[in-house]
Amino acid sequence: MAGMADWRQGFIAVDWGTTNRRAWGVAPTGEAVDLLEDGLGVLKVAPGGYTGELDRLRALWPGRPLLLGGMIGSNRGWVEAPYVPAPARLEALVGALKRPASDAVIVPGVSWLEGRHADVMRGEEAQILGAHAAGLVTADGSVCHPGTHCKWVRVQGGAIGPFRSVMTGELFAMLGRHGILQDRLSGAVAANEDFRAGAEHGLRHADLTAELFSIRARFLLGVEEDSASFASGLLIGTDVRIGLEFVGAGPVALIGRPDLTALYAEALRLAGRESTELDGERAFLLGARAIAERLS
Amino acid sequence: MAGMADWRQGFIAVDWGTTNRRAWGVAPTGEAVDLLEDGLGVLKVAPGGYTGELDRLRALWPGRPLLLGGMIGSNRGWVEAPYVPAPARLEALVGALKRPASDAVIVPGVSWLEGRHADVMRGEEAQILGAHAAGLVTADGSVCHPGTHCKWVRVQGGAIGPFRSVMTGELFAMLGRHGILQDRLSGAVAANEDFRAGAEHGLRHADLTAELFSIRARFLLGVEEDSASFASGLLIGTDVRIGLEFVGAGPVALIGRPDLTALYAEALRLAGRESTELDGERAFLLGARAIAERLS
Repeated sequence: MAGMADWRQGFIAVDWGTTNRRAWGVAPTGEAVDLLEDGLGVLKVAPGGYTGELDRLRALWPGRPLLLGGMIGSNRGWVEAPYVPAPARLEALVGALKRPASDAVIVPGVSWLEGRHADVMRGEEAQILGAHAAGLVTADGSVCHPGTHCKWVRVQGGAIGPFRSVMTGELFAMLGRHGILQDRLSGAVAANEDFRAGAEHGLRHADLTAELFSIRARFLLGVEEDSASFASGLLIGTDVRIGLEFVGAGPVALIGRPDLTALYAEALRLAGRESTELDGERAFLLGARAIAERLS
Repeated sequence: MAGMADWRQGFIAVDWGTTNRRAWGVAPTGEAVDLLEDGLGVLKVAPGGYTGELDRLRALWPGRPLLLGGMIGSNRGWVEAPYVPAPARLEALVGALKRPASDAVIVPGVSWLEGRHADVMRGEEAQILGAHAAGLVTADGSVCHPGTHCKWVRVQGGAIGPFRSVMTGELFAMLGRHGILQDRLSGAVAANEDFRAGAEHGLRHADLTAELFSIRARFLLGVEEDSASFASGLLIGTDVRIGLEFVGAGPVALIGRPDLTALYAEALRLAGRESTELDGERAFLLGARAIAERLS
């Protein structure tokens, strides 16, 4: 058993999601080097498989401790790191880090519960508070983190405050694989005229479950359209309508995969809103560094 | 080859859907007798398999002609019966019947196209116009036909006018089989307190894709609820909100599976609307008779 880890000598940061994981070596200077990227998300690690997988990560940069974020801390991951209730500052995440080994910490997720209003995030918290620690997200403002479950977050006094998840990415993927729209949604999505028509519809109308069927009807009746881009625009426009109503006025900081933040930026532009875009991987590394600094 | 069919001697009415089919013998008196019910929907009939299947149906009541409704007339069915554009009266359906054999007719579907507003139905048209022919749906009023793709129809001057489909049934089934909610939606749906809470939410708020995620969050955070009934209520309440905006004021005639029309009647009651319920099978037989009378 090694002694307490020395985070000042650099560390291994791992963003370990449901379907993928990615690891970087973060030098004392803050410079990050790619170490690993593969499809071994938590759903693919066999029961009892974490001991070997952790050793494999340790071997990528021997002697350095591990900072683990994302679904690795869920009940389907290695060790569960219970949710920190919002409002949650970076210090609260650090205080609630799970330490399943002397050289490893797991970042907890954040929950919000107010009567029947319930929400959870796991993975986005390090990115949002890391971006705030680096001055890229204001102490009071709005963040949108697109993805499988898009998060709309009110940042209040430097803390993650109330937030709301929208199932946009999951629904788009599901509709593309099952049911009557699957044949129409297999193409690539582009921020083209049909995407904008869908987004405008989603921003202005509250009839998503009807408008989705019209994609099928237009196809059957010979009306040409780029169905995949229209459907993406419709779901994202609906998402942005719901999100803006939740976060209120002001610019929106978009954090996430660059192809997704670009589509959301376009929908926000159609809604008359300013936005900034930040790559989610960069934000994760900012969060990992901000947490490691508080451990040194 | 037999001569022209004599519909006055009775006929075989077949409601042939995507996943199931059902056949009745309809006597000259109008009395209907069950002949067959099985899972041989059009998706399960092999290419070239219709010749044998039609002979099997003919053998159930030899010498009587066949009236076929539903997806049997789609591009995945036996012979395609092109959509009749709305507004469509019963006479228009009769005039556009497809006659692929001397003893068989296929009822066409109805389409509505106005700019980008596109919609189609296939199977509901015979039920709605049959109910109207029997005096169970007024010449000017609103019909709601719940199902995989719920239809909201403005009946105008005894014709199917503009209509709108909502993907409620398909989405509920998809969410119950795939993705993060599947474990929560496997139970039976009841018109209980949680159903009503979901329906009230769907009627009043336009945030379905966010509220669906909250079902998962409440479960993770230990808030008890009958998730399947809440989700059903949420989707149906959303459907009714969209549908009522489309059809406008007045009572709504519900036609469909009794378990579904009961749930929609409850959501309509919460929306302050009166409704009547009619079993879809009874409506289909009314439509089949009304069409056969015009062939005699």
